[in-house]
Amino acid sequence: MLDETTKGVFTIAATPFLPDGALDFDSIDRMVDAYVERGANGLTILGMMGEAGKLSAAESVAVVRRVTSRCVVPVIVGVSAPGFAAMTALSKEAMDAGAAGVMVAPPSGLRTDAQIGSYFHNTADALGDIPFVLQDFPLATGVQISPSVILKIVEDCPTCVMLKHEDWPGLEKITALREASDSGARRISILCGNGGMYLIEELLRGADGAMTGFGYPEMMAQVLEAFSGDKLDRARDIFDAYMPMIRYEAQPGLGLAIRKYSLAKQGIIAHPTFRKPGAGLTAAAIAEIDTLASRQTKRLKALGI
Amino acid sequence: MLDETTKGVFTIAATPFLPDGALDFDSIDRMVDAYVERGANGLTILGMMGEAGKLSAAESVAVVRRVTSRCVVPVIVGVSAPGFAAMTALSKEAMDAGAAGVMVAPPSGLRTDAQIGSYFHNTADALGDIPFVLQDFPLATGVQISPSVILKIVEDCPTCVMLKHEDWPGLEKITALREASDSGARRISILCGNGGMYLIEELLRGADGAMTGFGYPEMMAQVLEAFSGDKLDRARDIFDAYMPMIRYEAQPGLGLAIRKYSLAKQGIIAHPTFRKPGAGLTAAAIAEIDTLASRQTKRLKALGI
Amino acid sequence: MLDETTKGVFTIAATPFLPDGALDFDSIDRMVDAYVERGANGLTILGMMGEAGKLSAAESVAVVRRVTSRCVVPVIVGVSAPGFAAMTALSKEAMDAGAAGVMVAPPSGLRTDAQIGSYFHNTADALGDIPFVLQDFPLATGVQISPSVILKIVEDCPTCVMLKHEDWPGLEKITALREASDSGARRISILCGNGGMYLIEELLRGADGAMTGFGYPEMMAQVLEAFSGDKLDRARDIFDAYMPMIRYEAQPGLGLAIRKYSLAKQGIIAHPTFRKPGAGLTAAAIAEIDTLASRQTKRLKALGI
Amino acid sequence: MLDETTKGVFTIAATPFLPDGALDFDSIDRMVDAYVERGANGLTILGMMGEAGKLSAAESVAVVRRVTSRCVVPVIVGVSAPGFAAMTALSKEAMDAGAAGVMVAPPSGLRTDAQIGSYFHNTADALGDIPFVLQDFPLATGVQISPSVILKIVEDCPTCVMLKHEDWPGLEKITALREASDSGARRISILCGNGGMYLIEELLRGADGAMTGFGYPEMMAQVLEAFSGDKLDRARDIFDAYMPMIRYEAQPGLGLAIRKYSLAKQGIIAHPTFRKPGAGLTAAAIAEIDTLASRQTKRLKALGI
Repeated sequence: MLDETTKGVFTIAATPFLPDGALDFDSIDRMVDAYVERGANGLTILGMMGEAGKLSAAESVAVVRRVTSRCVVPVIVGVSAPGFAAMTALSKEAMDAGAAGVMVAPPSGLRTDAQIGSYFHNTADALGDIPFVLQDFPLATGVQISPSVILKIVEDCPTCVMLKHEDWPGLEKITALREASDSGARRISILCGNGGMYLIEELLRGADGAMTGFGYPEMMAQVLEAFSGDKLDRARDIFDAYMPMIRYEAQPGLGLAIRKYSLAKQGIIAHPTFRKPGAGLTAAAIAEIDTLASRQTKRLKALGI
Repeated sequence: MLDETTKGVFTIAATPFLPDGALDFDSIDRMVDAYVERGANGLTILGMMGEAGKLSAAESVAVVRRVTSRCVVPVIVGVSAPGFAAMTALSKEAMDAGAAGVMVAPPSGLRTDAQIGSYFHNTADALGDIPFVLQDFPLATGVQISPSVILKIVEDCPTCVMLKHEDWPGLEKITALREASDSGARRISILCGNGGMYLIEELLRGADGAMTGFGYPEMMAQVLEAFSGDKLDRARDIFDAYMPMIRYEAQPGLGLAIRKYSLAKQGIIAHPTFRKPGAGLTAAAIAEIDTLASRQTKRLKALGI
Repeated sequence: MLDETTKGVFTIAATPFLPDGALDFDSIDRMVDAYVERGANGLTILGMMGEAGKLSAAESVAVVRRVTSRCVVPVIVGVSAPGFAAMTALSKEAMDAGAAGVMVAPPSGLRTDAQIGSYFHNTADALGDIPFVLQDFPLATGVQISPSVILKIVEDCPTCVMLKHEDWPGLEKITALREASDSGARRISILCGNGGMYLIEELLRGADGAMTGFGYPEMMAQVLEAFSGDKLDRARDIFDAYMPMIRYEAQPGLGLAIRKYSLAKQGIIAHPTFRKPGAGLTAAAIAEIDTLASRQTKRLKALGI
Repeated sequence: MLDETTKGVFTIAATPFLPDGALDFDSIDRMVDAYVERGANGLTILGMMGEAGKLSAAESVAVVRRVTSRCVVPVIVGVSAPGFAAMTALSKEAMDAGAAGVMVAPPSGLRTDAQIGSYFHNTADALGDIPFVLQDFPLATGVQISPSVILKIVEDCPTCVMLKHEDWPGLEKITALREASDSGARRISILCGNGGMYLIEELLRGADGAMTGFGYPEMMAQVLEAFSGDKLDRARDIFDAYMPMIRYEAQPGLGLAIRKYSLAKQGIIAHPTFRKPGAGLTAAAIAEIDTLASRQTKRLKALGI
């Protein structure tokens, strides 16, 4: 079960589809194995980049069961939903299937501190004793959550054990939360998203690791390993080698297609298919990705990776 | 099956719950009967005021089956969803259960004309031959749809047979659409929402009726009957008698609680329960509603109603 | 000088233009006189419906000077601006010209309680000892302000002497603020906007009056007079007589044109001209307004008004 | 005068302030000289990162006059305003002072294609024969502009001579506009913003250069020089050396403080002061910037720069 001490890399998993748009269960298996081989300490499935919103309720359950039955590391399941009934139904299925916890992003209409706090109190009530991750991703949700609101949720809801941090800018938020826990607030796990764009700085500010996807998912483990081994400069060198691609994948809306293209190119999934709506890649975009990939390979080789 | 010639009153149905939040199937039956007795030519279920987003997928199907098995007038089912898989799954269940058509509101991220047009083209593709209602409700969705975009969808998608009009302000939009169909564009049905706040003007501009809910659902039929009987002044008198309550119910977020309170007060549903999140009524609010209701009764009596 | 005890009707003034779009100073004079004759206890100029954003800095100052030199009741000047330099410059001009205070709405990007509180603390700092009105109008600004945030601003900023209340729904907010001041918080003036749509309920909840415009500005004084004279039913009757027009004028974006048309029709201003951007009235809309006006006249006459 | 053939680097200028918040005219002079020495082919002042919204009307004019009197390359002046009166007033002052053209971003409320097109038609009307830049920056404005809308504005408004492109993702938009001009549409200049984050790809797609700021403003000229000299790999190497800092400066809201800190550190401006509201830098942030700067220096040196 997920708890406050969780550390390392939780890879945000894609949801693979066949060319006709049906779920690709064989690719799920291969992808799960590949993520773990490339250093994932856990997986997060049915997140935004897992196209959760594009699955039917039955498909979501099918994905959860397939991944949890295959995966040898803990699995977190995204259960964000317009209402608590759908959230609870999927959470129960997920925990029954062996998930370690669930992740919840706030619905886009929330504005005031009171509305946000109340939403997560209701979430904790609805989820009972299931441990959950608070996903803080304002660029996608439109909801801005102050550190004081997070601290109140952490104080009131013992089942909130992790923050998926992807506020932007968000470095001072990590510092504020760590200063609070250093001063006696309950310390929860902070894993960072945003495609890893600020990974080094986030770790320096007190994050416990990364929860993000990337077309080359080994990046997160490589950076963390160097960082944890007190080789900060090497961690930066590795990170910088990936950065042109990280930046390219960071294009909103287009990032999904880019990531799936990279995963398919490496054989991690069979097809780059994603479901509508969503922008596809032109020939020019594919050429850009290929160029970046080839420069990335060269630079990593120069680093002995 | 729903088609372009649909007219009259389609009442937006509430979803009744027991005090513990479970679906109240007995109240569903009573409510369906009451709506029809009070003049509904059709029902629309699982809309925003039907708390669609707060139901699990299984509950949505249960509501659809209960209503369609009871209801003697056509039923439209709201199937708006973050993705097409969920939309299609519910639509199929609805049509199998005997629904007359489905209703789709755009997801809140759409901005440009091209994005909106593309979304409804994809919707039409996903729904196959199921007739659908385009719900145009910018205050709730944040999506503003130009008349030219609606006309293009109408032109390209023969299964788009109705507009649920609740743009605000939206009177010129009705006029623009009717001028277009007078000049040769396909004429679809326009039923108006927004709690009926502009019902008389909407009818004068060319709307075919109302698709809205209200705590006193007989209002829509009474106004339409007078209007259709060429008693415009009487239609206005009736409308004006209800207007203070229409206005009170128009409070965003709070409208659901107000409407359910009124429905419960009249015995149409057993309990005013609604699901979280949602604001409840204070004693002060209940007193305000009761006062408005008593003045409304008096004024209607003076009109011989 | 404006202070916490301010009561009554502060009419939101239009800004009259000549047909070529230039400021119409003669109409300003006539309009100021008419507002006062029709019961205004004060005026608020350069608000949103005063087209403040469409004036150059020099024009804003010219309007302020003309109105303050003519007006025999206190004048509040809207000084909302993207930055504090422009806000301060206009505020100084306004106070020098004899204004009683200024009004500030938050810029649309504010989200968290801390951001909003900080913005008004900075506002109070920038304005020095000038009394100011906090304009709380989420439908227009996109900024939702919790009662607790307002109370903190009131506590920390003695120059915040009034709330222009136009949250929607907002009745519980009035109650919350009045309960707080009954329990010891500083009590500030609350005048209500939103076109008067909920005026009776707002007064019953503890508002001190209205700060709004309307094509028939005598409405506010008539309702308040009856209300203050303990003739609540008569206040409701009067209000209900105006309600169809209040509702019609409440159409966002279009309300300005409707109000200016009504003011021009009555000779209060010479021309209904407004500046771009802004939607104009079609012949159909004008016919609708004329019909509503004629029914309104009849109904008021029946009430002896 | 600005026209469609403009190419190269237009540096987005900061607005320097003294520690007390007053305009720092000496720093303006020094900064203008530094930008030109570091390769600017033109300057753009009073943009968003120039804190335009935080200046009073009088201050804006003062900045325009100081910069234009000093600057030996063309100057574009940001004139975005809530209304056309303020926009026109500043534009006239700017052109009288010797500016080459003006830049206009759409106000945040625009949604439909028709609204956006109409806004820029009105802009062109209001500006008369002044050449203008259309600033397309959805992340900041919330307004999404389709290629077809831009093309219509370009077709109808001959004074629209340049696009400041900072849509994100926006590469396909450049391609679409260039394909259109290759097929006969009027070809306007496209200079790219977004802090330079996608500069290489933008140039490959057909952009004519960059219009952006950065704490190390020589970056843009260095990249463009290599790119124009057919040394694409070297252009990428230079770009990659700056990328960690570009990425760090890309933090919304915080970017201004970061950029001003870097400019002040290099002596380009005397003080890193910026006006409220705006987030400042903590000691941790300053340490991060210093580390990135020192790695950047090392890497550029390795490239012989």
